[in-house]
Amino acid sequence: MPESTIASRRIYDGRILNLRVDTVELPDGKTSTREIVEHRGAVALVVLDAERNVLLVRQYRKPLERYMLEIPAGTLERGEEPDKCAEREMQEETGFAARSFERIGGFFSAPGFCTEYLYLYLATDLTPSSLDGDEDESIELVRMPFDQALALIDNGEICDSKSVAGLLLAARRVGSSV
Amino acid sequence: MPESTIASRRIYDGRILNLRVDTVELPDGKTSTREIVEHRGAVALVVLDAERNVLLVRQYRKPLERYMLEIPAGTLERGEEPDKCAEREMQEETGFAARSFERIGGFFSAPGFCTEYLYLYLATDLTPSSLDGDEDESIELVRMPFDQALALIDNGEICDSKSVAGLLLAARRVGSSV
Repeated sequence: MPESTIASRRIYDGRILNLRVDTVELPDGKTSTREIVEHRGAVALVVLDAERNVLLVRQYRKPLERYMLEIPAGTLERGEEPDKCAEREMQEETGFAARSFERIGGFFSAPGFCTEYLYLYLATDLTPSSLDGDEDESIELVRMPFDQALALIDNGEICDSKSVAGLLLAARRVGSSV
Repeated sequence: MPESTIASRRIYDGRILNLRVDTVELPDGKTSTREIVEHRGAVALVVLDAERNVLLVRQYRKPLERYMLEIPAGTLERGEEPDKCAEREMQEETGFAARSFERIGGFFSAPGFCTEYLYLYLATDLTPSSLDGDEDESIELVRMPFDQALALIDNGEICDSKSVAGLLLAARRVGSSV
């Protein structure tokens, strides 16, 4: 173990995250601290309709005090399977269900200080859903051609890492003309 | 303001991050809480040599209790300009300086709960550097053809969002054959 834990202090146990500070022993015998945000993980979805439009969501992000245009995503409930979470979040955020869900990868959002892993799905073959949205969230659905979303990455309007990584990974699957 | 702050509780002030919990009033008059990790921001670098190899770093990530293969990156010092930080981190982590630094984008790592913004650079035209590494970090330098790194994204070996997003954004600049 290159960084063995010699002490661990719990700072906060919360709704979507916890915080602890570990004291670790390094290979050279010195000690250091690691501030670690514990997160249950999440799913993110690249949702494509039959006309090769992508469904994005615009919502206010309090940490940034600004609106962000992102791919749909959501945190795993306690004990929830990623596949189940993907279906639920898809319907809550877009108002559609998908007959086809494909896992196309995943990534840790900030491995230096956070445990969060995001499962990435490609959702296609859409049908309307009657499931209601999360009342704690105010989300606007935005539909645009897939290649236009890639252009919004290039101009910086889409600028969160899961959306950039998710859309560019999807483009390696479904191709792009831009 | 769609989520005005009606109370803010500071939980922790640390070395690379702080934590606060805001109570917010939503547009419908209800209240909710937002757990917010404050982070100074960081830089990440796609480093290419003259033979179109990319320089990656392998290091132990305590939050995940595993080694990760990532593009070089580092947190901004207090008050540090991103350009300056990019030069410093590049030399500390790779042992090379770059005559050419180009900003090729950037992204928020986890906009739902964290303020961190990552400035992304493409570094080319390399020369050896004599700057020492950060003694708190144990980093192995890995050099491989750029297209091989893209293949490692596809097979899941490179699996943190800044590396996935950064390498795929760079591929849109410099092209790829995979």
